[in-house]
Amino acid sequence: MSKVYLLDSTLRDGAQSVGISFSVQDKLKIARILDELQVDYIEAGNPGSNPKDMEFFERLREHPLRHSRVTAFGATRKKNTPVEQDANLRSLLAAGTDCVCIFGKSWDVHVTDILRAELSENLSMIRDTVRYMKEKGKEVVYDAEHFFDGYRANPDYALATLQAAYDSGADCLCLCDTNGGSFPDFVQSVTALVKERFPVAIGIHAHDDAGMAAANSVLAVEAGATHVQGTLAGFGERCGNANLSTVLANLQLKLKYDCVPAEALERLTSTVHEVADISNISVGKNMPYVGANAFAHKGGMHVDGVMKNSLTFEHVSPSAVGNSRRVMMSEVAGRSAILEKVKGFYPEIKKDSEEATKIIDMVKHMEHQGYQFEGAESSFELEVRKLLGTRPKFFELQMLSVVDEQQPETHKKPSFATIKVLVCDQLEITAAEGIGPVNAIDAALRKALEVFYPEIGEIRLTDYKVRVLDSESATAAKVRVLIESTDGHEYWTTVGVAVDIMQASTHALMDSIEYKLLKSQAKAEIVSSRTETA
Amino acid sequence: MSKVYLLDSTLRDGAQSVGISFSVQDKLKIARILDELQVDYIEAGNPGSNPKDMEFFERLREHPLRHSRVTAFGATRKKNTPVEQDANLRSLLAAGTDCVCIFGKSWDVHVTDILRAELSENLSMIRDTVRYMKEKGKEVVYDAEHFFDGYRANPDYALATLQAAYDSGADCLCLCDTNGGSFPDFVQSVTALVKERFPVAIGIHAHDDAGMAAANSVLAVEAGATHVQGTLAGFGERCGNANLSTVLANLQLKLKYDCVPAEALERLTSTVHEVADISNISVGKNMPYVGANAFAHKGGMHVDGVMKNSLTFEHVSPSAVGNSRRVMMSEVAGRSAILEKVKGFYPEIKKDSEEATKIIDMVKHMEHQGYQFEGAESSFELEVRKLLGTRPKFFELQMLSVVDEQQPETHKKPSFATIKVLVCDQLEITAAEGIGPVNAIDAALRKALEVFYPEIGEIRLTDYKVRVLDSESATAAKVRVLIESTDGHEYWTTVGVAVDIMQASTHALMDSIEYKLLKSQAKAEIVSSRTETA
Repeated sequence: MSKVYLLDSTLRDGAQSVGISFSVQDKLKIARILDELQVDYIEAGNPGSNPKDMEFFERLREHPLRHSRVTAFGATRKKNTPVEQDANLRSLLAAGTDCVCIFGKSWDVHVTDILRAELSENLSMIRDTVRYMKEKGKEVVYDAEHFFDGYRANPDYALATLQAAYDSGADCLCLCDTNGGSFPDFVQSVTALVKERFPVAIGIHAHDDAGMAAANSVLAVEAGATHVQGTLAGFGERCGNANLSTVLANLQLKLKYDCVPAEALERLTSTVHEVADISNISVGKNMPYVGANAFAHKGGMHVDGVMKNSLTFEHVSPSAVGNSRRVMMSEVAGRSAILEKVKGFYPEIKKDSEEATKIIDMVKHMEHQGYQFEGAESSFELEVRKLLGTRPKFFELQMLSVVDEQQPETHKKPSFATIKVLVCDQLEITAAEGIGPVNAIDAALRKALEVFYPEIGEIRLTDYKVRVLDSESATAAKVRVLIESTDGHEYWTTVGVAVDIMQASTHALMDSIEYKLLKSQAKAEIVSSRTETA
Repeated sequence: MSKVYLLDSTLRDGAQSVGISFSVQDKLKIARILDELQVDYIEAGNPGSNPKDMEFFERLREHPLRHSRVTAFGATRKKNTPVEQDANLRSLLAAGTDCVCIFGKSWDVHVTDILRAELSENLSMIRDTVRYMKEKGKEVVYDAEHFFDGYRANPDYALATLQAAYDSGADCLCLCDTNGGSFPDFVQSVTALVKERFPVAIGIHAHDDAGMAAANSVLAVEAGATHVQGTLAGFGERCGNANLSTVLANLQLKLKYDCVPAEALERLTSTVHEVADISNISVGKNMPYVGANAFAHKGGMHVDGVMKNSLTFEHVSPSAVGNSRRVMMSEVAGRSAILEKVKGFYPEIKKDSEEATKIIDMVKHMEHQGYQFEGAESSFELEVRKLLGTRPKFFELQMLSVVDEQQPETHKKPSFATIKVLVCDQLEITAAEGIGPVNAIDAALRKALEVFYPEIGEIRLTDYKVRVLDSESATAAKVRVLIESTDGHEYWTTVGVAVDIMQASTHALMDSIEYKLLKSQAKAEIVSSRTETA
């Protein structure tokens, strides 16, 4: 099990993603999460170009990380400027990290066209900067920007830039495919050549513009690289950096390299989702290893196969990365997958019964309307119970009316919801206000029903998502609302579909409350049956 | 320029994606789009397992495609069943396509554990089926399911299955990485070995479970494969099939293979988005070549570099795939990117002026609130004009009130919006109804303002999107609403952010109307100045 070192750059290169804007607090939270995953290096900012990053480094020094080395990132000195007088390098040192990542130019056209410097001056800039950082006692990772494009254009010059960094004492030469346009066979052979020439750690930094970032990273390691840079969820400029969760799982589970402790890898899925949540970017459902669909089986033959022998349709076990197998309910999945779900709460269901046929028809009909029970199993259970006549009638909504008034340029007025519910012959009419109409409906529903069912007070909504289904129909489009709730012990998700968001939200909110009541009832029955037996 | 044949399986393997459920109409639309792209084969369904597919094949025969060969997909015959009596094969023939894709088992454990057949019986199944299809005059693509896993486990047997298909006359042997767990160096060497042994077209069918599908497809071609299977937007079970748009652009633009006409490739981005729209799945913003962010530059240095020489930070030209460069407005992008946008409608802006500073501060402040002007340039223009005092006051919204009433289990009642607007000292008070509150607001706004500005009648909303920004705040969360509008000539997009969807929608709707009025005014000025000159 040879060791491969991981450098996560979510906080630096990842911050270049469209849509990401980290606060210092966000960065601190993500650094702690990465530290728990035990990645070796956390590249956490470019103190020279972003003053917010400096505050982050200061705060981090007060509460140091336990496993990961914090790394600050910066360019080689400016042309014709002594290192001691370079403002960026001064900021880099001020960050006070043990490790720094210095990037320099490897591609001749970048030196001449972008830096507008002599080729020899660029070599001096690399030499001076690396040497200076070594003199200051830093571990130095040298990022050879655009190395592969540079090597393609002018291999001698590209290698000369590495030589400059190597001669000045760089601890690692990291080869970057900055534009993300290189292919794995080329990356593999060039990495092998560099590895042979320089007896020092070699790194790889790939981007995904040709869809090759994971492959380039893995094949570079197979060619001798021992340091891999990327971002945990693949965030990064344009198409993103190498997805470090994909690369990590590939290296450790399939090629048996040693990257992080096995128990940390077993939390990979939730780790990636936590980082993405803080970044306010959703994890692609089809992301390798950690996506919601990464182990989702829908085709009838696949569902059948995976149930007979999971290896036949899964390249690794989902539990090795903290993910889980999902058997989808849909017309393609066939009866067995849907009925497998029903068995969870109705074990007596028979595969060829009339009830089973009714359930399948119901799923097809509701999917056609825009429902998706994948990921909203609680609403699915309620619908099946309704169909089978085993759904208790906890309440009946008789009327719900909302008044919302806007007066632009002034503060938003609250919305008001008036509600009338019937619970066992007793009517409750009440009203509540909220921030916007959906929030007012939520408040009114709880207020009216808590009179009868105080346990509703335990429910807290933890997620609320809206998807416009046929967005071309614009404001008259159908929407699907997904609501996730918790009572502190369990989480459940419910769904509502309607031509307007209030109706869809109301449906999902009512389902959430009903599901909670169903669970409390079941618990009460267990307790009472235990009491009887005792 | 040697030819590589593409087989798109969006309609067959893509339909296995979680969340996809094609109607026959959807499939016909997608087939036409793929035909226009001129992919060589469209694998369009599995008539044996899905009766809906049969209707599709019938409808397609009535209006044949112009370029692509329609392909039906099915398994080898059932064990111990003569080909003539196999129901699936009968359906396959009934589909009436010129080309069929037959899949068979290559991995010994699949034969013994899933099919529960003798290894030799599986070889007969392959032989009989391929021979039968050839006798019926079909072009036969043989899909060797799990070939790479099979080769790893038992190379002799895996090769024997190919031999069986080859001996029976298969026109193409397609090697499948069905579980998506193989790496490109292995795929490349095994493909080369197969290519050497069998003098017939070799294909590759990859899945993305290890993030390697694009790399596996490209390296297989470099090893001699001339037939590539995938799905245009990467749809497919679990992590998806090889993304055919990525593979196509890689092969044709970077490795100079001949796949589709250059002018079809130049429409690739819109083609992928059309297919995704029909499938009701959004295209990942970071998807190589065709994603909205694929050529988006945000980091200051990158923006600077790409403006000096686009090659320095772009591996191909965005126009080669019908995409476009985007310079993001954000704090990281720096002044120059933001001011570049402003120049579009306010050419006299100076980089170091006080106005410029004000604009930058405004963008930062609004981004902090949850606004994103990326992709909502019309709202950006309105905000800048407001700041600079050049935004005409077309109307003032004085009051907007909505009443919405739900009575579950009955049909939804319409929502009512009451509105009061002021236009040049004239008040208009009116009301309108709509399907749901947002639709009612939309109707009321137009009704009130059309009195003064009849050109508003030309506006049609073409897209409406909602994103919940901090979904953990549940029903009190901030939402961002994006609205796309057209007047038949131009499209524009506006954005609104607020703690409730009605306020956010109202903002975006009002911006859309204002932007239209701004355009009409500018046009009127041009016309009047022309008249004066004449």
